[in-house]
Amino acid sequence: MSTAGQVIRCKAAVAWESGKPLSIEDVEVAPPKVHEVRIKVVAAGVCHTDWEYLYEAEKGMKFRPFPLVLGHEGAGIVESVGPEVTTFSPGDKVIPLFLPQCGECERCESAKTNHCRKNWANTQVGVLADGTSRISYQGQQVYQFLGVSAFSQYTVVPHTSLAKIRSDAPLDKVFLLGCGVSTGYGAAVNTAKVEKNSTCAVFGLGAVGLAAVMGCQVAGAKRIIGVDINPDKFAKAAVFGATECVNPKDHTMPIQEVLVKMTDGGVDYAVECVGSPSIMTAAFESTKDSCGSCVIAGWTETGVMNVKVEKILMGRTLRGTYFGGWKSVEDVPKLVNDYMKQKLKLDEFITHTPIYCWRVVLVCLCVRASMTEIINERTS
Amino acid sequence: MSTAGQVIRCKAAVAWESGKPLSIEDVEVAPPKVHEVRIKVVAAGVCHTDWEYLYEAEKGMKFRPFPLVLGHEGAGIVESVGPEVTTFSPGDKVIPLFLPQCGECERCESAKTNHCRKNWANTQVGVLADGTSRISYQGQQVYQFLGVSAFSQYTVVPHTSLAKIRSDAPLDKVFLLGCGVSTGYGAAVNTAKVEKNSTCAVFGLGAVGLAAVMGCQVAGAKRIIGVDINPDKFAKAAVFGATECVNPKDHTMPIQEVLVKMTDGGVDYAVECVGSPSIMTAAFESTKDSCGSCVIAGWTETGVMNVKVEKILMGRTLRGTYFGGWKSVEDVPKLVNDYMKQKLKLDEFITHTPIYCWRVVLVCLCVRASMTEIINERTS
Repeated sequence: MSTAGQVIRCKAAVAWESGKPLSIEDVEVAPPKVHEVRIKVVAAGVCHTDWEYLYEAEKGMKFRPFPLVLGHEGAGIVESVGPEVTTFSPGDKVIPLFLPQCGECERCESAKTNHCRKNWANTQVGVLADGTSRISYQGQQVYQFLGVSAFSQYTVVPHTSLAKIRSDAPLDKVFLLGCGVSTGYGAAVNTAKVEKNSTCAVFGLGAVGLAAVMGCQVAGAKRIIGVDINPDKFAKAAVFGATECVNPKDHTMPIQEVLVKMTDGGVDYAVECVGSPSIMTAAFESTKDSCGSCVIAGWTETGVMNVKVEKILMGRTLRGTYFGGWKSVEDVPKLVNDYMKQKLKLDEFITHTPIYCWRVVLVCLCVRASMTEIINERTS
Repeated sequence: MSTAGQVIRCKAAVAWESGKPLSIEDVEVAPPKVHEVRIKVVAAGVCHTDWEYLYEAEKGMKFRPFPLVLGHEGAGIVESVGPEVTTFSPGDKVIPLFLPQCGECERCESAKTNHCRKNWANTQVGVLADGTSRISYQGQQVYQFLGVSAFSQYTVVPHTSLAKIRSDAPLDKVFLLGCGVSTGYGAAVNTAKVEKNSTCAVFGLGAVGLAAVMGCQVAGAKRIIGVDINPDKFAKAAVFGATECVNPKDHTMPIQEVLVKMTDGGVDYAVECVGSPSIMTAAFESTKDSCGSCVIAGWTETGVMNVKVEKILMGRTLRGTYFGGWKSVEDVPKLVNDYMKQKLKLDEFITHTPIYCWRVVLVCLCVRASMTEIINERTS
């Protein structure tokens, strides 16, 4: 029986307040309004940013209202569409997007940026275009995280924040393209524009960092140095293309000096995938004089990094990446195609899929195990 | 009678120690050694960097040895050449270069950088390739500033740090291409790569800033906002193409907020031409979300600027420029040609040429009047 037009009652992991565990609740998900699509979430990843908003807000995140359904990296199937939605139909496989692509604004028309701002002000404070959320608990509004809320069995998203993907795509793999993998991979190939035979360093070997390593490899870098304080990640980094790995804890010198020494002057490209201002500075200073380029992919909303001006004057570039520079609606389906053609690895990011207790499969990334395990404890 | 092969006794403005006035002395200038050229300096500019090394070393400059002959922006005529110099002959008009272009190294072969390092380590500490200076005073070595020392009637420079220019070029104008004008102009056209119809802000309306304004205009920017705390500079900025000027002192809001408001979101390009880390931060934050680009042209060797990470993540780029990105030996003659074809303004930078008391004409730029006047007092 079709559920279109009906309120759907389902499970969601609700964050009632900052710093407190998620709680599995029966929520109501309203039908989609104009230009919105309701989707059944089939798989979701726990991104470090979800964790930070919940547990470390004071460490570098702006305040978001609670109660909140987190999750911004997922994949699902269209359940129903709201008025004036013409590009999606029930049954379509989709990936919801925290970064929209309206296709009509100046930014969407520019080749220089992917920062579409359709519905931006609203989704940043947990609501959709009409100023309300579609999720509620016993009549109380529950905010939507970044316009997505993938930690719910159903959610409603703007049609400009949704990528339609091929019908044979495995949702429990391609959901990774909703955030982490696209961000890291694009940081290397789109933002840094890593060149063939170059030397690269990737700081932080979580999912974003591993994807950046993969991007450097696909771009033809000859030397890809993974940097992490957890050596357990080095074997996985090698799978994605790291030619060597360094643990800053093994050295008394600052890591940037270690890298400058290892590479006889610095790397061509450094990608920061941690979100720590001090590591950003280290990444920047690990690049070489004259034309080194540092891309910041790690997330912090309130952090401030120190930049030695002389390092800038000597020819370095510092830039940021957001969703890896991809034009979300049009590029995510292409990334899915690349995965299906085995040009892009996704399976290797996944070590286990621990939660089947409710119909949303929360996929646990190897590199995010610790935080996921904690969330698991709260949600299983 | 030829002076080739002879020690030349001439006048130079010697900086005996940091913080003390220059002193006009009779110095000896030795003949050029292998791969060196001795030139008669005909015109020289006083760049802010000269001033800073002398009087404000502790504020952002590294220590350089004294006694020292300052001056790194000049033009002259080849007097004689050392062994193995084949590309210069006595009588050639030339501009000495603090940035070399050897034409043989990896950097010279790369289109991505102009940071040739030929003789770099030595020229940074005041000597030439053999570890000594060619200038002395009563047998005591007098160090050469950045391998140039234009505040001497004669000086010796490496042949890879010298641009041969057309014989009809007026040296008392084109000397400006030895540093300030090339730096600011190139910051806009080479490093920022200012696009047609864009909106630009230039912080600091000294010679470098005015040249950046000119670069923005030549690139076709539709709006060029000059920023300076001295409103006396605004009329001159208009001559070079500024469409409007702003005095931060006229506003209670930080200047970056004023600019974001004026431009409905921020400028496309900001060029910092002051050398102050706090102004660099303001310039960076005045650029727009999604694709704003900030170029640092102002000089400081020890300063550290603060960068709000979120501003980077939202699509901004920060990069530096050194000698405006020009490949010095090959591009300076082209800039001279552009001046001769009236594609580039130089005369307008000059308001008066105050010193004729010795044969080097110290040309006083309008925008550098205050410091030059002080140096004038010491040298006239």
